[in-house]
Amino acid sequence: MTTIDLNADMGESFGPWTMGDDAALLQVISSANVACGFHAGDPVVMAQTIAQAKAAGVAVGAHPGFQDLQGFGRRDLKLTEAELTALVQYQLGAFMGIAAAAGVPVAHLKLHGALANMCAWDLEMALVCYRAALAVSPDLRLFVIAGTQQQRAAEQLGATFSAEIFADRAYQDDATLVPRGQPGAVLHHPDQAAERVLEMVQERSVIAQSGARVDVPVDTICLHGDTQGAIQMARAVRARLEQAEVQIAAPE
Amino acid sequence: MTTIDLNADMGESFGPWTMGDDAALLQVISSANVACGFHAGDPVVMAQTIAQAKAAGVAVGAHPGFQDLQGFGRRDLKLTEAELTALVQYQLGAFMGIAAAAGVPVAHLKLHGALANMCAWDLEMALVCYRAALAVSPDLRLFVIAGTQQQRAAEQLGATFSAEIFADRAYQDDATLVPRGQPGAVLHHPDQAAERVLEMVQERSVIAQSGARVDVPVDTICLHGDTQGAIQMARAVRARLEQAEVQIAAPE
Amino acid sequence: MTTIDLNADMGESFGPWTMGDDAALLQVISSANVACGFHAGDPVVMAQTIAQAKAAGVAVGAHPGFQDLQGFGRRDLKLTEAELTALVQYQLGAFMGIAAAAGVPVAHLKLHGALANMCAWDLEMALVCYRAALAVSPDLRLFVIAGTQQQRAAEQLGATFSAEIFADRAYQDDATLVPRGQPGAVLHHPDQAAERVLEMVQERSVIAQSGARVDVPVDTICLHGDTQGAIQMARAVRARLEQAEVQIAAPE
Amino acid sequence: MTTIDLNADMGESFGPWTMGDDAALLQVISSANVACGFHAGDPVVMAQTIAQAKAAGVAVGAHPGFQDLQGFGRRDLKLTEAELTALVQYQLGAFMGIAAAAGVPVAHLKLHGALANMCAWDLEMALVCYRAALAVSPDLRLFVIAGTQQQRAAEQLGATFSAEIFADRAYQDDATLVPRGQPGAVLHHPDQAAERVLEMVQERSVIAQSGARVDVPVDTICLHGDTQGAIQMARAVRARLEQAEVQIAAPE
Repeated sequence: MTTIDLNADMGESFGPWTMGDDAALLQVISSANVACGFHAGDPVVMAQTIAQAKAAGVAVGAHPGFQDLQGFGRRDLKLTEAELTALVQYQLGAFMGIAAAAGVPVAHLKLHGALANMCAWDLEMALVCYRAALAVSPDLRLFVIAGTQQQRAAEQLGATFSAEIFADRAYQDDATLVPRGQPGAVLHHPDQAAERVLEMVQERSVIAQSGARVDVPVDTICLHGDTQGAIQMARAVRARLEQAEVQIAAPE
Repeated sequence: MTTIDLNADMGESFGPWTMGDDAALLQVISSANVACGFHAGDPVVMAQTIAQAKAAGVAVGAHPGFQDLQGFGRRDLKLTEAELTALVQYQLGAFMGIAAAAGVPVAHLKLHGALANMCAWDLEMALVCYRAALAVSPDLRLFVIAGTQQQRAAEQLGATFSAEIFADRAYQDDATLVPRGQPGAVLHHPDQAAERVLEMVQERSVIAQSGARVDVPVDTICLHGDTQGAIQMARAVRARLEQAEVQIAAPE
Repeated sequence: MTTIDLNADMGESFGPWTMGDDAALLQVISSANVACGFHAGDPVVMAQTIAQAKAAGVAVGAHPGFQDLQGFGRRDLKLTEAELTALVQYQLGAFMGIAAAAGVPVAHLKLHGALANMCAWDLEMALVCYRAALAVSPDLRLFVIAGTQQQRAAEQLGATFSAEIFADRAYQDDATLVPRGQPGAVLHHPDQAAERVLEMVQERSVIAQSGARVDVPVDTICLHGDTQGAIQMARAVRARLEQAEVQIAAPE
Repeated sequence: MTTIDLNADMGESFGPWTMGDDAALLQVISSANVACGFHAGDPVVMAQTIAQAKAAGVAVGAHPGFQDLQGFGRRDLKLTEAELTALVQYQLGAFMGIAAAAGVPVAHLKLHGALANMCAWDLEMALVCYRAALAVSPDLRLFVIAGTQQQRAAEQLGATFSAEIFADRAYQDDATLVPRGQPGAVLHHPDQAAERVLEMVQERSVIAQSGARVDVPVDTICLHGDTQGAIQMARAVRARLEQAEVQIAAPE
């Protein structure tokens, strides 16, 4: 039987500001990437998010990002190796502390925003970040963007990893994402997205805009919950997968 | 043979700003309380401080404080139980993450500044903070201010703790500190302070301004390194203790 | 003809996080209190809010608060006179800078959250904050909570001020607010609130829970826009006032 | 009689952390660039710095930077036009507020760190920043790095500006700085630096490493005060200029 993980970023509220509908998403996903207080989230939000995920039977992972609250961690920052290392270890540790208090295992780590994007293109930077994380927790599972330098870094380090594809983003023939701004870069139709996800899961490959198939590992699907439309797409993806008797479960 | 621990706050630099002479202090103390990025310190400073302490054979503990960089964690803040809990767990976890990467055990936790002061007077608040820490790390040693509600909280929780007295602060007959601003509240003469510390260690009691002895546990002596005078006092205290064949060592 | 000002806090979004329905509120109010980046808002949000208010013909004022984003400026902080002074001047200046660039006059200053509450009870603190503001802009109009030490401070300084009452809060016989948590402290029914506002405006007095009238100046009504219910109440208040031919206008 | 301005960055302390010897520098310079709280400084430090400068008869200007305290504003950040505009206006306004309260005129604006460097190379970015500042204060004098896109932007905008050269940096034949890391990029010898400054001031040109002269306007000399050596160089520069009867004065 085919199994796949569905993941989404969560715990992105901050202080009095709410973001996303975490409660709705937790009914859909099997893995939650929890913001660690640098680009979003704060210690209280982290604790609440982890507790909610636990109650929903959803696995939780650390989701570290640049320390740029106003920019939501989406602005590139050139950091030194020492800065990157400490940045990842600090946030991962903070997450582990709060998860330990909640009695919840730390299931994975996924990089956020500009930190993730830069590591998708920059092998050295990905190696620094992942080495940092594994120095804290040697058996930690890494969520890597399928086919990128993130994946290559995880492979070089001999790390346990899950390769991630996106439910709502179009792919190019080299398995990279169609840049935002180009026509069709973002999929908006839930059923169409769900159908494509199912195919990609069953074929374990990325389906490009051209129709081309690119072989990549496909272990987890990235969903979103920041808009009403995103939640609907997430639900459509899950429903389609279940209908096809694909099992939804966090990696073990 | 009598043994005592000497502790000091460290890692209080931030970004490009330096504070204290950590290198000098590490030659004197046996336990370092490392700022965790909320009132002082940043992830890079934490990693550097832990590495320095490791090289010097000094034990390290987490030193969480209020999230108030500009106020150095010295301004009172009324937080909810959930906020206090998450605040402590986040910082302790972050510290544990960086310490784990350095291969250094987490020897203790000591509260900082206004967070510490409020918990010295408020049993409930101390219980919340210590419960939070123990939920992350059940065997964690707590550094508590001797004779205060911090100590009572640690006792009520059945926690392992070390009771702390101050080398440079005068005591009242009830073992509380003479408030800053009152005459003689702060000791400035290194030899005089060293002599009093020795007596307090040997008698395991606090010596008040009046000369009165108050029985409290005495496990660790708080020293400072933020001024040249403070470093000299710290050295004098250590020298006097060693001269009297008191062993300086972190708690085990 | 009777004239009254309707004010509300605005520009409380931060980075990617949205708060309140400013566009809806701007159709109702005559004066906007714009967060200045310390407890809410950021420079971009400030510029957008001021532009929106200008387009809607709504006067804008600076709304400084404590530098406590996570706590939304609602947590008490004891600051020194120098800290309070600089806190107010910095935020007021920042607001004036952005307003000047937008070609919009700075109509008033209103303190936010815990800073406002503390100044409502503490005359010295209110004097420090208002002196600070007037040192930057000597003719600045102060929005003060009617009948509090804020008002007394403004009077002592000979400042131009507008006294503010609340549409949705119950009053005690001494014109202070019924503390939140007590029965009836917050009014939830739009029509009831609107009727009471009209009476208070016409009688230029506060109407206590007991029915007692307390003479205070009544120049501006504080409305809210953070919930759907709040917007409805704001609309009901405006509609009731207009129906009674009370003119809605910012102070001149 | 030849006149030149000597400027230095000041007010870079933050909360309990001290940076630089501002008191010493104020005896040397004629213009102080005051950090505005985003990359360094805080409202209290700003107020103190402005008061000190006023007492020393030194002109003060706003010195805005990226909002990156930990990185001291030295890390590149790609901001949108709206973000850059609001960033500059907010900090300039905050500075103007505190300066107004101190009764001190705002003499100039100089960009800091990575913000300055990026604008030295990127005309569009410089135009955005300077337009933003001039929208707040149309007659504001801009301190621009001589011969860069900063200068070109100021010229395009018809702004009043002072062109700045560096006392301690080597120049290339195109009047750009020798990159740090290359041999001789930074001058360390006070007398040698002072002699070169005098020549550059008298010839109103930059003297390159090769000995080549490049004509640029020379209105103000950038000095530093963050190390003991820097202070000595600053003093040597001033002494040499005075000896040659060059008048030291802020631009009028």
